[in-house]
Amino acid sequence: MNQVKIKSPGTVANLVCGFDILGLALNDPYDIMEFRLLDEPQVIIHNRDHFELPTDPEQNVAGVVLQAAIEKAGGNIGFEVTIEKRIKPGSGLGSSAASAAGAAVGANLLLGNRFSTDELVQLAMIGEKLASGVKHADNITPCILGGITLIRSIYPMDIVPLATPDLFVTVVHPQIEVRTADARQILKQKVLLKDAIKQWGNIAGLVAGFMRNDKALISRSLEDVIIEPVRSILIPGFDEVKQQCREAGALGGGISGSGPSIFMLSETEAIAQDVAGIMKAIYSRIGIDHYVYVTTINNRGVEVVEGEWSMVNS
Amino acid sequence: MNQVKIKSPGTVANLVCGFDILGLALNDPYDIMEFRLLDEPQVIIHNRDHFELPTDPEQNVAGVVLQAAIEKAGGNIGFEVTIEKRIKPGSGLGSSAASAAGAAVGANLLLGNRFSTDELVQLAMIGEKLASGVKHADNITPCILGGITLIRSIYPMDIVPLATPDLFVTVVHPQIEVRTADARQILKQKVLLKDAIKQWGNIAGLVAGFMRNDKALISRSLEDVIIEPVRSILIPGFDEVKQQCREAGALGGGISGSGPSIFMLSETEAIAQDVAGIMKAIYSRIGIDHYVYVTTINNRGVEVVEGEWSMVNS
Repeated sequence: MNQVKIKSPGTVANLVCGFDILGLALNDPYDIMEFRLLDEPQVIIHNRDHFELPTDPEQNVAGVVLQAAIEKAGGNIGFEVTIEKRIKPGSGLGSSAASAAGAAVGANLLLGNRFSTDELVQLAMIGEKLASGVKHADNITPCILGGITLIRSIYPMDIVPLATPDLFVTVVHPQIEVRTADARQILKQKVLLKDAIKQWGNIAGLVAGFMRNDKALISRSLEDVIIEPVRSILIPGFDEVKQQCREAGALGGGISGSGPSIFMLSETEAIAQDVAGIMKAIYSRIGIDHYVYVTTINNRGVEVVEGEWSMVNS
Repeated sequence: MNQVKIKSPGTVANLVCGFDILGLALNDPYDIMEFRLLDEPQVIIHNRDHFELPTDPEQNVAGVVLQAAIEKAGGNIGFEVTIEKRIKPGSGLGSSAASAAGAAVGANLLLGNRFSTDELVQLAMIGEKLASGVKHADNITPCILGGITLIRSIYPMDIVPLATPDLFVTVVHPQIEVRTADARQILKQKVLLKDAIKQWGNIAGLVAGFMRNDKALISRSLEDVIIEPVRSILIPGFDEVKQQCREAGALGGGISGSGPSIFMLSETEAIAQDVAGIMKAIYSRIGIDHYVYVTTINNRGVEVVEGEWSMVNS
């Protein structure tokens, strides 16, 4: 195989009480990436979208991952990649993780699957570091593996795939800017022990709920007493969205990643659609442009897709 | 039924990273309690051990629970109880919880099982409040239900029985005094967010490990970066016990409750016995009297036992 086309899914990280450790993959939105193996150590990037992301490999999230993959593979090959980004940068839906994880998996496919999952995550984290300044894996891991994943520890790497409950996910992306770096900076370095205890009770309940597919326990455990109260002030309409969606029957939800997107989990598509209607109504009234997705949890992660090959000849 | 005899098991609370939320029940040690229903609203307590615990119901852990049960039942009945305590008070093995939970379950049996599990836990917490000044349920819940239990929340009460993995438990009780109140006071009110994140990664891993019976994941997750570093300084020999037991093949462990007992989980009885030998050797060398138990996880909780009836006639 010397060329491959993949879908790389959007993801929800910082899953409510699971700040920095829990994430899930979405079936929508996703990026498309097309890779071709080159016989010289170089990275060529084409964008097939309107986000004007850098094509200099040193400045591009997928580019730095591909460069690292070349080095890891011995330095005698290269990659040409065309990226069609559908996950908006800055949405809080793992746009940079999709590029980074997609690049790691794409390179691995063209190199005969020589990297382990841990190595793929390590490679992709180089892209996340470029994007946000921090090596975090809670978008990358569900992006690569699908489902709901736990990052128990980054040093040493310890990834635990948890489950893929049959839940519907509604996401609203209000078109405001929340920079990941700002969202990190606003957090307090210390938290009250009594709040931390509440949080770890909720995490434990959420993990048990996901593993048992116990919707009521999932719903009771979807509570974040530490991060959300601080970060939600950066997102106009957050409290209203959360309260009305809960009242409409959503199991619960919160900030996706570091925002501004908000996600809600629901048991049925009908509720997920009602939740979408509520989100649209609130942001229309407030006067903020927005996108809404009604989707399900993706259980495959980055995957090869067929279809017309559109890569520009180099 | 107007009389009943029960076994009430010792428990390990504050299960490593699960401070205040996770506990497990032991098959050894346990208390024996014999109850008789009386037709007047009074509580009569007899002790059949050498701990000289108060027999004034207002000052006795089982006594205050029985008084509350009488009130809850309408006030027209009473209880006589004989307590044979085998779980040493102050050991960190849930001695007061065994009295409190045993009293709640014993009363319930004589009252025709009128209380729900939540109500039993609520009743028993009245005894814990007398013993330690704090209404906590992480000893009581496994004591009543058996196995490993999660207290996701106390207000409102949310109890999640998790699992009963086939593990061996070795416990050493060094004969030094660590008062629960002191052990609470030594804790800092605030913790670093980065430590809290590590802790909730470990809790999530531990819950997943218990539910899947994944011994390697349990072992990796048995790490407490918040409470143990502070409290372990109250227990001479702690670091040495922990390190040597891990080296001998134990999955891991830590302080039982608020100490001074230390527990270790092992996959096999042979390892659990080796661990017992290590514990004995260390405390013999340091020169601290100690008891060691090699046991398994109790999956039944408080249970009715047959056998000779020894209650003093009132």
